[in-house]
Amino acid sequence: MYKVYVYVTLKEGVLDPQGKAIQESMHSLAYDEVESVRVGKYFELTVKDTGEIDKRVNELCDRLLANPVIEEYRYTLEEVVPN
Amino acid sequence: MYKVYVYVTLKEGVLDPQGKAIQESMHSLAYDEVESVRVGKYFELTVKDTGEIDKRVNELCDRLLANPVIEEYRYTLEEVVPN
Repeated sequence: MYKVYVYVTLKEGVLDPQGKAIQESMHSLAYDEVESVRVGKYFELTVKDTGEIDKRVNELCDRLLANPVIEEYRYTLEEVVPN
Repeated sequence: MYKVYVYVTLKEGVLDPQGKAIQESMHSLAYDEVESVRVGKYFELTVKDTGEIDKRVNELCDRLLANPVIEEYRYTLEEVVPN
């Protein structure tokens, strides 16, 4: 069994109006030191080990979790040892 | 200057219908090895160093980025060295 942590972010150069809105909220609350905000998505999956976990996780990211036109993703794997 | 990477997740025990829907989509695409999906949020901030960055980032998370009733957050800091 694996825990898979997936991070999806907008590609560099893609505008992020949601992040811009958050940054403006921060400035209006006097957090002027915040220079930029980029928003992404984060997923924690629990996946049974089928022996080809990297291939399967990449497929899932490409097909469901990220939009490869404007987003990129990375993930980390952690093996879960049953007690 | 710091890059701050913030991860916001639902507290354990809080139902995650969005994650459940994603898991069901995965099963309908024959990714039956996925046992659970939890959805979170991910933010990348660029913040000027004001000498109290941990205090300020914790405030931002509590006030804007996470809902402390149902969510928890963690973050990592990375100092950006200007070229």
